[in-house]
Amino acid sequence: MIERLSQTRRREALAGLPGWQDVADRDAIAKTFTFPDFNAAFGFMTRVALVAEKLDHHPEWSNVYRTVAVTLATHDAGGVTERDVALATAMDQIAGAAA
Amino acid sequence: MIERLSQTRRREALAGLPGWQDVADRDAIAKTFTFPDFNAAFGFMTRVALVAEKLDHHPEWSNVYRTVAVTLATHDAGGVTERDVALATAMDQIAGAAA
Repeated sequence: MIERLSQTRRREALAGLPGWQDVADRDAIAKTFTFPDFNAAFGFMTRVALVAEKLDHHPEWSNVYRTVAVTLATHDAGGVTERDVALATAMDQIAGAAA
Repeated sequence: MIERLSQTRRREALAGLPGWQDVADRDAIAKTFTFPDFNAAFGFMTRVALVAEKLDHHPEWSNVYRTVAVTLATHDAGGVTERDVALATAMDQIAGAAA
């Protein structure tokens, strides 16, 4: 059973994840990515989907044309865990590589 | 310039699109698709993305694990047009083929 991050660890993790923020009304973190166009946005989603499936940890996300809004939380733990940090880190790497 | 559907045409189109409904607070139509798992849900999204790019008409959509919630509207027309009917029809066909 994976555990929710301590406040200290969560602050530390968010400090290393630019643009990721706590969600106001639930225990989750979120970020909105913006790309040049739909092709780039969906390309990002496709690469992330492969990583998510491999990690067996999936984002909640929405896409409107060239933006992708992501929320991460670990349902089994009822909050943010190292799994979310790992997926957020992978998303930032993929978005950086695509930009 | 593409025009918004007449009420008659819109009713007719929705009658042929099971599960699609008017959105309460804006001029748009919406449907939530549910698949066996994330693999199937994202596979659906990938096939739809290719169609959307070809049509140059893109959905607003969100994905949480095995569900995909879609909203369609034509921004240039400020409402629902034949472009949305075409994309909704393609989505239903793809979802049916994937199921």
